[in-house]
Amino acid sequence: MLATLLYSPGDVRCEEIAEPTIEKPTDAIVRLSASCICGSDLWPYRGLQDIESPQHMGHEYCGIVVEVGSAVRTVRPGQFVVGSFCLSDNTCPHCRFGFQSSCEQREFMKGAQAPLARVPLADGTLVATDELPSDDLIPSLLATSDVLGTGWYAADAAGVQEGSTAVVVGDGAVGLMGVLAARQMGAGRIIAMSRHKSRQDLALEFGATDIISERGDEGVARIKELTKGVGADSVLECVGTEQSMQQAMNCARPGGKIGFVGVPHGVQFDGQTLFFQQKSLLGGPAPVRRFLPHLMDLVLDRTINPGKVFDLEVPLADVAEGYRAMDERRAIKTLLRL
Amino acid sequence: MLATLLYSPGDVRCEEIAEPTIEKPTDAIVRLSASCICGSDLWPYRGLQDIESPQHMGHEYCGIVVEVGSAVRTVRPGQFVVGSFCLSDNTCPHCRFGFQSSCEQREFMKGAQAPLARVPLADGTLVATDELPSDDLIPSLLATSDVLGTGWYAADAAGVQEGSTAVVVGDGAVGLMGVLAARQMGAGRIIAMSRHKSRQDLALEFGATDIISERGDEGVARIKELTKGVGADSVLECVGTEQSMQQAMNCARPGGKIGFVGVPHGVQFDGQTLFFQQKSLLGGPAPVRRFLPHLMDLVLDRTINPGKVFDLEVPLADVAEGYRAMDERRAIKTLLRL
Repeated sequence: MLATLLYSPGDVRCEEIAEPTIEKPTDAIVRLSASCICGSDLWPYRGLQDIESPQHMGHEYCGIVVEVGSAVRTVRPGQFVVGSFCLSDNTCPHCRFGFQSSCEQREFMKGAQAPLARVPLADGTLVATDELPSDDLIPSLLATSDVLGTGWYAADAAGVQEGSTAVVVGDGAVGLMGVLAARQMGAGRIIAMSRHKSRQDLALEFGATDIISERGDEGVARIKELTKGVGADSVLECVGTEQSMQQAMNCARPGGKIGFVGVPHGVQFDGQTLFFQQKSLLGGPAPVRRFLPHLMDLVLDRTINPGKVFDLEVPLADVAEGYRAMDERRAIKTLLRL
Repeated sequence: MLATLLYSPGDVRCEEIAEPTIEKPTDAIVRLSASCICGSDLWPYRGLQDIESPQHMGHEYCGIVVEVGSAVRTVRPGQFVVGSFCLSDNTCPHCRFGFQSSCEQREFMKGAQAPLARVPLADGTLVATDELPSDDLIPSLLATSDVLGTGWYAADAAGVQEGSTAVVVGDGAVGLMGVLAARQMGAGRIIAMSRHKSRQDLALEFGATDIISERGDEGVARIKELTKGVGADSVLECVGTEQSMQQAMNCARPGGKIGFVGVPHGVQFDGQTLFFQQKSLLGGPAPVRRFLPHLMDLVLDRTINPGKVFDLEVPLADVAEGYRAMDERRAIKTLLRL
């Protein structure tokens, strides 16, 4: 089959490889209905993260189970499933506390930018639907696997609740999903920080009540202005740079919560500053499995349409163009037709 | 009157100064029933924090109101009051969110190691009792002003709840109060990290279920052993050093919460480590005013006896010995008889 391999920064290729097979009794093989490129795939693509060359790319997935290992009990061939990008047993204490992304057996999914994928820890990772979903729901179901689940976790970690004022730092796909999540959680005001028209429009469609195009001190000043000088209850940090984290810290009110889901690159926090700013911090890889059944329900009953975040669709053979478009910010998120 | 002045590191003196007077219409003058020395007074005493020489010391206080400014409405002369070490208006948005220690008008109390003190923002800061309390309750009421309120905030920020497993890092007065707070909040297991017999005994008396004398990696290993490899739900960091913060981070389970109330000195957090450890952080100067009415009730109905944390009592004239005893860790906390 064709699959996506990253050889070195900027050098992503679609090449013929062997189809995956069951390696452990807890594995499942899934024929993917669609795949996509994640913002986090750009870190190694840009040379900002080490790779094993060639690296099998892709960790967002949904599709039909074609085979399961002998120990798998909860899914069977023929079922439509979605799984988290974090593979988990869903039974260890961390999983039971809802932090499946810190599962004692945690692995990260790979190789999902291809028509078939091996999913380890299938019982703990995959969630099946009752019936096969209609085709038009595939992009949104695919989104629950990571990008929506991650935006949702940002809002959850930032303590968004009925009536909250939430600020979303970052207008990438995760930030836009954070807007959608904050809306679903009942935030009264959702301020999206974005300076790109197409992303601003999508943020408004997903539920943003205000758009701020300023950044840095000016951005903070605008947030203060919009919140009567108080600052936001909740800030969703969806980038991971020093600048965006600083932005997030300065936008939250004292006692406010920051949920950070952009993998921090070059970010340091000074203890005494954190102390006197008195802001709550929780981040990490999203425990998508915790949210997955609920998010899938919201998609299946058409309450939400996160699939709109895909603004470019290419066949798998053109995956390199999909990466380039996201790298150059011509696309928010690329869907791969398999 | 006699008052406590810090001239330079190690040089604390009890000297005659003018009695305080009403300076603003929102002030009150309080005749203190007792005063005490705080662990945080040792930072400037040890030369680890700049001082204005001479610095008027003391920020924990309770006593009888003797005079109020023309704008004060909620307390009157003759009433017994306790106030937080953080002065707040208790009406600004931050106060209304329960973060009075980040009040828009915040000031820090000073000059309370003396028989009389001026308390700015009296309406927002002071809480009066219905009747004059009996003398034996004074130490415990004094404790609510800072040391208990701070330990309580550590437990609150660490999310302690019914059945939680809590670890308390630091066996100073604040840590011991953290044990008491965790107990009151219903923690099922309270693990105090202490290697000093007298402090271990007090921790047990305040509600600790386990004592660990190991530190560093060994301490973490013991916590893991006691929690079946999981780590603690809640960690109260009550010291403020790099080592103690590291200890706190490593003792919490993924998704666990760390409440840190020791003013960080030389502490840095790496963003990516924080991300992958997936632990929640909230610290800061304690918003004691939020908890004060409840804590005073618990003392007045004799549910708790935080005054036991005072293990040395000296007359104000001997305040220098009180500082020395705490600096040399001969005393946990010194009460000053006025």
